[in-house]
Amino acid sequence: MSAAAFAIGVDLGGTNLRAGAVDASGAVLCRRSVPVGADKSAASVVRLVAAEVRAIADELAGTPAAIGCGIPGIVDAAGGIVQASPHFPLWNEEPMRERISAALSLPVTIDNDANCHALGEARCGAGRWHRNVICLTLGTGIGGGLILDGELFRGDRGYAGEVGHIVVEPEGEPCGCGGRGCLEQYAASHGFSVFARRLPEAQRTALVAAAGAPEGELTPEIMARLADEGNAVAQELWEEWGRYLGVGIATLVNTLGVMTFVIGGGIVRSWDKFIGAARASALSHTYPRHASELVFLKAELGDDAGIVGAALLERSSSIMAGRRIP
Amino acid sequence: MSAAAFAIGVDLGGTNLRAGAVDASGAVLCRRSVPVGADKSAASVVRLVAAEVRAIADELAGTPAAIGCGIPGIVDAAGGIVQASPHFPLWNEEPMRERISAALSLPVTIDNDANCHALGEARCGAGRWHRNVICLTLGTGIGGGLILDGELFRGDRGYAGEVGHIVVEPEGEPCGCGGRGCLEQYAASHGFSVFARRLPEAQRTALVAAAGAPEGELTPEIMARLADEGNAVAQELWEEWGRYLGVGIATLVNTLGVMTFVIGGGIVRSWDKFIGAARASALSHTYPRHASELVFLKAELGDDAGIVGAALLERSSSIMAGRRIP
Repeated sequence: MSAAAFAIGVDLGGTNLRAGAVDASGAVLCRRSVPVGADKSAASVVRLVAAEVRAIADELAGTPAAIGCGIPGIVDAAGGIVQASPHFPLWNEEPMRERISAALSLPVTIDNDANCHALGEARCGAGRWHRNVICLTLGTGIGGGLILDGELFRGDRGYAGEVGHIVVEPEGEPCGCGGRGCLEQYAASHGFSVFARRLPEAQRTALVAAAGAPEGELTPEIMARLADEGNAVAQELWEEWGRYLGVGIATLVNTLGVMTFVIGGGIVRSWDKFIGAARASALSHTYPRHASELVFLKAELGDDAGIVGAALLERSSSIMAGRRIP
Repeated sequence: MSAAAFAIGVDLGGTNLRAGAVDASGAVLCRRSVPVGADKSAASVVRLVAAEVRAIADELAGTPAAIGCGIPGIVDAAGGIVQASPHFPLWNEEPMRERISAALSLPVTIDNDANCHALGEARCGAGRWHRNVICLTLGTGIGGGLILDGELFRGDRGYAGEVGHIVVEPEGEPCGCGGRGCLEQYAASHGFSVFARRLPEAQRTALVAAAGAPEGELTPEIMARLADEGNAVAQELWEEWGRYLGVGIATLVNTLGVMTFVIGGGIVRSWDKFIGAARASALSHTYPRHASELVFLKAELGDDAGIVGAALLERSSSIMAGRRIP
């Protein structure tokens, strides 16, 4: 075969499926995106994944050296099974690795989508020069992935990386996980509504009037506009937002001794509005010696991170480690 | 040589040096303990370590297959260097591996003492059946060690495992690390004084009177006695103590996806007074599915954990991993 070697990475979301071919250096050679559609059954999704992989292989006129697929939910990567997925509620212990592999007659590797994003950013994106990297994706919630000693760390049953559920206020805001005071109630898009509720009434009323949106809908986009317009309360709430992020990062620094954080997600567009407060807050909660070591990096790969990471899965020895008897 | 194979583990503390011979199953064949003495210079400590290792080798009439030494402080295990140690303030980037090795004319491995404790408990103690184990030693502070995918995880520059500095109250008690609201301000021996200060005055006065000690000296021993005597406030403070421990553990569960915790230290003598509240608190801050998976185990090896873990260091491939280029 004359085509250069490539792997195919698939990034399955609840709404869209993205896929691409990735070369050995981590560069994306081509990419495709299709809607998942209304039929969220495993059979339908398997057909869709297989069709996209075939379309890419045809486009490059070659056979992929490896195929990886990132899937939202609880994924047993070693077993190749999706235990449960919020976006695909019908799935229950679905053996997606085997099913996709059977549809393509090729070996396939699967993992959680946040793990794939983290692997992509850590190996081929902003974290590429670092051995230990924690990736945070800030959006509606906080996605996370841990690259420890150069490999994805999955924990027991693939549960690792739920950094949005670091407890920053034991009696704080209720969270969808059933707990309270989780980091993602503050340092994700919902946080501004929480902070606004704590403002003195006059400030809150003025903020809501300037926003042109009720208190519960103070999105990062609105808050960024207000801060850019010079609204001092909005600017202060961005700093508050950064302080919470820093507290969560401090706990990760102290626990894991990892100093490199890659931060992505749409909120990163407002990087300068929160990153100073986040850094100061993280340093105020860690040993002074960390001041010169802590590194915050902006994610570089954007929507490609999941594709690149999925394409790297087979090369990532940690899945083999997951099969090893200790 | 006719003697069975053994390794020697050294557990260096600020006050005492403990050492022992450990066989391939992790059993301690013999142990010694000597005071460190007033001369805390590196040269003096190296002589002491070498003398103890020789005495054990002589007693067993054999040459140790490996020698490991756990040292309090910041230890670069891969480089064999003690960067700084609170108990040995004169040391600065001290190449202890090389120095001990030169004194004995034998290869030596060194690591942080809490890492050695964790390795001992995880491999040969309470955690022996588990692949991922987090060890917590509750005392004046909280010592910790992470065994991930069967190996010690050290993080960047050996900083991993400072689980006592998980931030549980961002604006809470000041901590020796320079931060505020660290877990070890609550779920270690000092916690009872913190909780007592928050009591209504009448309750606080009664508690201090029953304790026969000022508020700042409400040790776990005193609080255990009061709880055993049926003092309801003391019993409630033990539960409060457990709730904080549970919040810290929940953050570890959510972040690392590790479900097995080995808990040691003197406070474990009061296990039944806090463990129920700790478990309920941890579960209230994690996904419901973890209820059947979370395991709290009492440490089994006591003071031997550091010796056993140090003896296992050379066998632990993670030091090699620490030398690897990713």
